[in-house]
Amino acid sequence: MARHTGKGEATRAAILEHATKLASRVGLSGLSIGRLARDLDLSKSGLFAHFQSKEALQVQVLQTGAALFVDAVIKPALAAPRGEPRLRALFTRWLEWAKSQRMPGGCLFVAAAVELDDRPGPARDTLVALQKDFLDLMANIVRSGIAEKKFRSDADPDQLAHDLYAIMLGHQHACWLMKDPRAAERAEFAFESLVSGIRARRKTA
Amino acid sequence: MARHTGKGEATRAAILEHATKLASRVGLSGLSIGRLARDLDLSKSGLFAHFQSKEALQVQVLQTGAALFVDAVIKPALAAPRGEPRLRALFTRWLEWAKSQRMPGGCLFVAAAVELDDRPGPARDTLVALQKDFLDLMANIVRSGIAEKKFRSDADPDQLAHDLYAIMLGHQHACWLMKDPRAAERAEFAFESLVSGIRARRKTA
Repeated sequence: MARHTGKGEATRAAILEHATKLASRVGLSGLSIGRLARDLDLSKSGLFAHFQSKEALQVQVLQTGAALFVDAVIKPALAAPRGEPRLRALFTRWLEWAKSQRMPGGCLFVAAAVELDDRPGPARDTLVALQKDFLDLMANIVRSGIAEKKFRSDADPDQLAHDLYAIMLGHQHACWLMKDPRAAERAEFAFESLVSGIRARRKTA
Repeated sequence: MARHTGKGEATRAAILEHATKLASRVGLSGLSIGRLARDLDLSKSGLFAHFQSKEALQVQVLQTGAALFVDAVIKPALAAPRGEPRLRALFTRWLEWAKSQRMPGGCLFVAAAVELDDRPGPARDTLVALQKDFLDLMANIVRSGIAEKKFRSDADPDQLAHDLYAIMLGHQHACWLMKDPRAAERAEFAFESLVSGIRARRKTA
């Protein structure tokens, strides 16, 4: 059995990387130990040693995707100054993420949300917890901007987080389904409207 | 073989009604002739006589869902006066649709969008055409409001249609995945912001 030794860890990481990209194309429910074994030329029993069940695999794929998202989007955003620059950095990186080839079939989380919304279980619980963390993080970016008087004091941080998420869902729809060449531009316009609605007026905050 | 006689038509309509509800729960790809035959106590060969292939079934399920949506949302909206009342009627009915039990697993189209975005074929083509019609309809509601000086002359009808769709995608996510009790309220807030951004100023249009 593969333990969490160096080689075992590296194999496990390689499997998860492949599985995460695959899930972005075929959905979490399209992931199967058999398919991964064929794709990666590994034995099914070896894969079962790493992931005891399909559900455990789904949970770890979501966690792997979340770790990629943290590196690509959240960390750089939190390095930007509070207020608008931070919110803008988050949005810009997120849009890049949505268009990037890291997720060859579109954002894994958007697909998983629709797939899992009525399927109770550990994968759904993991997804909801990850999304809740992310919505809270966005609300906190707004909150710290309000505290520093960069955003209006009556801005609603949770509403902003919700609206920003909706903009990205709209972008995904326009980009992946409708193949709208103006998808990114539309999302940027919506983002500018959102930010201008909460920007503190100069000298009067 | 069932022809489009009265009885054949009624059976076909009943099958499609069931299939449309089922697809809202299990997705279009979860629909199968075998499952429908079991659910409805019909023979597989009888079902094949109605729907020559799984793909033909998917296309007709999308068209059935679209017809329900036209009756529940679009027709009542178009009966409202042009400008804000019409846009508001559309939004209100749409939100009711999203929460209603007609679609027991959430909006069929939202799920189908994610399911089909990278699966070329007649089902995807049908979905894209339906969504395009609907986005155009929303843009036209804005356009006629501009023509009657109810909305600002510089409002962008296609952007508005895009943004309204994004609000509804955000609502679906908040409602079905996150089980946010404030999902409808959040969507309503976002709608009010959107409308207030294009409302013509009194006496100055």
